[in-house]
This record gives sequence, C-alpha cells and structure tokens, in this order.
Amino acid sequence: EIVQAVEAALGATPRPLAGKRIIVTSGPTHEPIDPVRYIANRSSGAQGTAIAAALRDLGADVTFVTGPASVPPPDGVDIVRVETARDMRDAVLNGLPAEAGVFAAAVADWHVANAAERKMKKDGSGKAPALEFAENPDILAEVSGMAAGRPALVVGFAAETNDVVAHATAKRDRKGCDWILANDVSEGTGIMGGTENEVTLISAEGPEVWPRLGKDEVAKRLAARIAEALT
Amino acid sequence: EIVQAVEAALGATPRPLAGKRIIVTSGPTHEPIDPVRYIANRSSGAQGTAIAAALRDLGADVTFVTGPASVPPPDGVDIVRVETARDMRDAVLNGLPAEAGVFAAAVADWHVANAAERKMKKDGSGKAPALEFAENPDILAEVSGMAAGRPALVVGFAAETNDVVAHATAKRDRKGCDWILANDVSEGTGIMGGTENEVTLISAEGPEVWPRLGKDEVAKRLAARIAEALT
Repeated sequence: EIVQAVEAALGATPRPLAGKRIIVTSGPTHEPIDPVRYIANRSSGAQGTAIAAALRDLGADVTFVTGPASVPPPDGVDIVRVETARDMRDAVLNGLPAEAGVFAAAVADWHVANAAERKMKKDGSGKAPALEFAENPDILAEVSGMAAGRPALVVGFAAETNDVVAHATAKRDRKGCDWILANDVSEGTGIMGGTENEVTLISAEGPEVWPRLGKDEVAKRLAARIAEALT
Repeated sequence: EIVQAVEAALGATPRPLAGKRIIVTSGPTHEPIDPVRYIANRSSGAQGTAIAAALRDLGADVTFVTGPASVPPPDGVDIVRVETARDMRDAVLNGLPAEAGVFAAAVADWHVANAAERKMKKDGSGKAPALEFAENPDILAEVSGMAAGRPALVVGFAAETNDVVAHATAKRDRKGCDWILANDVSEGTGIMGGTENEVTLISAEGPEVWPRLGKDEVAKRLAARIAEALT
C-alpha cells in the first residue's frame, strides 16, 4: 500500500478515471420478516468491494452503496450503508449523476409485504404465518432505462446456477444495461463467498469468457475495461 | 488471559464444573429458500458464546453447537458448526448425554418445505414463488421431554418483543425446561447484536429480574447458577 501511495503521489500509476464519478453497489440485501427475522442471500460483498477498490485505484470518485456484507468496505470511497433493496434504490438515485454504475449487489427480488412489527410466534396450529411477497424495485432496469441522466455505462451482474450465458444474455436485453458480468454460483463452484470468480462479460458484441481469476483480478480487468469505455 | 491461565494452573480459580459435560447452542440458524437465498435472524451468537466461555472457565467440558454466528466461537470447547435447525437438532442429540443443556441459539421456527434446488427467478408475472413452510424440530421441548437421558438441567431462552415475563413463563411451562432466560429484543433496546443484555431468569420459583449487564457478566452469573444447581 505504501508503494501504491508513493506511486500514486509520483504519478506513476495511471489514473484514467480521475474526475469520473462511478456508483458501485455491493453485498446482499436483507428483507425483514419481523423485528428479528429476515431474508438474506449468500453474497459476501467480496466482488463488489474489489471492483470499488480497483476503480478507486484508477482515480475514480466511487460511491459505494453496500448491503450488510461480510467483507469490510474499501478505503477511499464514499460508503453508503443500506439494508433493504428499497433503501439501496434510494441510495443509488441519490448518488446520481455518475459516469458509470456497476450494480454488483445481490439485490433481493422480493420483500415481505406483510412484515410484522412484533416477533411472529407459533400459534400451536403447526402452520406458519403466510408471508406475502411484493416485488422489489429493479435498480438495474430503472437506471438503465433512465430517460435523462442515465450513466454512460451501466454494468449489471447475473448470478446463475444453470445455462449461464443464455440467462445472462436474456437479462442484458431485458434490463437494458450495457454489460452483464455473468457467473455460475451453483454449489461446488466455490464462487459465492469464495475468493475466485469465473465470469463471462456480455456486451452488445456477445459473450466474452474470462478465465478463472481471483476476485481482485476480475475487478482490475473490469476497471480497466470501464476506463477504456469512458475515455 | 495469562493471569487466568496461571490462576487455573495454580488451582486459584475454582472449577466446580470439572468433569461435567454441558451442551450449549448458539447463534442463528439459516433456512435455505434456494441455493443462494435463506431466512436468517439477527442473533449474533454473542450471548451463547459468552455462556460457553463462562462454563468452560468453571471447568465444564462444553460442546458448542453453533449456527452461522457473527462472533467467533470460544477457545477450549468442542465446536460443532451447523446451518439449519434440523442440523442443530441432530448435533444436539449426538452431543448427549450431558449434565446440562443451555439452548441459547435463535432457532428458526420454520423451514421452507419447498426450497428450490435451482435459483428461483422472477417469471414476469410480478408474483413471487409461493413459499411453503414446515415447522422445525423444537430442540428445547424435545430435550426437556426426554424419557431417558434428559440432562439434569435444561435452560432455554426467550427473545420477546412484548410482555416478556408472561410470554417466557408460558414458554417454560410449554417446553418443560427447568429455566428460561428471557429478554426483550425489541428495537431500541440494542440487545440483539449488542454487547449488553437485560434478562429475567424464570424457574419453578418464578421470575428473578437481573440488572442490565454486559453479556459476559450475564454469562458468568448464569454459569455460577448452573454450577450451584449441578453440585
């Protein structure tokens, strides 16, 4: 880190993203069921955190909107902590305008519409209280479709457990984003919660398979591509 | 810690629980919805971890059955890591016989009966897939009601958000355990996930209100009471 700081001070590290604002979302969201229970997902926030750090290293002003992740957020970025998908949407819209948005968070698709203010209890019937779900805001689609103030580059993620490229290509079309970074999170890959990632970058040009890399290396590669695209 | 180790070596610390096996459960459980989503609760595992450490300090052989907690488990205990309530039950039964059981885990009441093997997706209908719930095993009631091999002392916990003593007293009767340590986890108390606890010990003699104490102090007090009861 000292070497990096000295290199940066001396101008030895190129900072192609200097002066560019980029929003990065990261981590899981937690959707309350009652005061003590919630629905979560297995995202550790590791990939989003690495991307924010890599963009910062290229000089970007990073706004880092993070759910309750298990890895600590990076230094040198603006951190906005949120819990639910609805909170995350508000934080993203507050963080605009930005030159790019990288939506790496594993946002819950649904929240519990009838979340209870008191702890739910077993009533002796053996039946669970019925949970009613409502769709969460689709942050990626909303930002991708903005009529005014859309970031020049919108990057989404697709965590799939099967037919990764087909699902992710369809997701890119459906959401209207520019790129999708797709990966296979099925059990046994060790990716979700792990240190490595194996991604396919899907753009208008089609899928581009990247080798299995450390999440830091995936982040550096993506940051370099973002710098190319924005400059 | 050095002082403690030296005192222990010199026999300066009384070890009234030497040779006694005690099972302690701790932390939340995670109940899968699909490969990436799960239902969790806000238990940090701090109180259960402190109790296991306090019992160990009094000489007990502690089997520590822990869900995915955010605080690290104590040293010097047998650690059994589990995820779901069903796994926790199996680990507890495997850990018997024991002189006492302290069931501090925040065990989910229900699991998702129709958990999916593939990641659930939005189908465009705006409707969430219907989750069907099934009741989890009631570890506290099951161990409390064992015809043979029941621990001499079974201690349960009640995390309540209202009418704490009434709910916890009813819980003690319903479960058939010896003691309930009850607390108020409603928002604003700062107990769930915090460092302090304010508990009421409910036994056959009725409720005994303890002052607000650090979770370590609550643990020491409980361990001392357990030592009294078992010796």
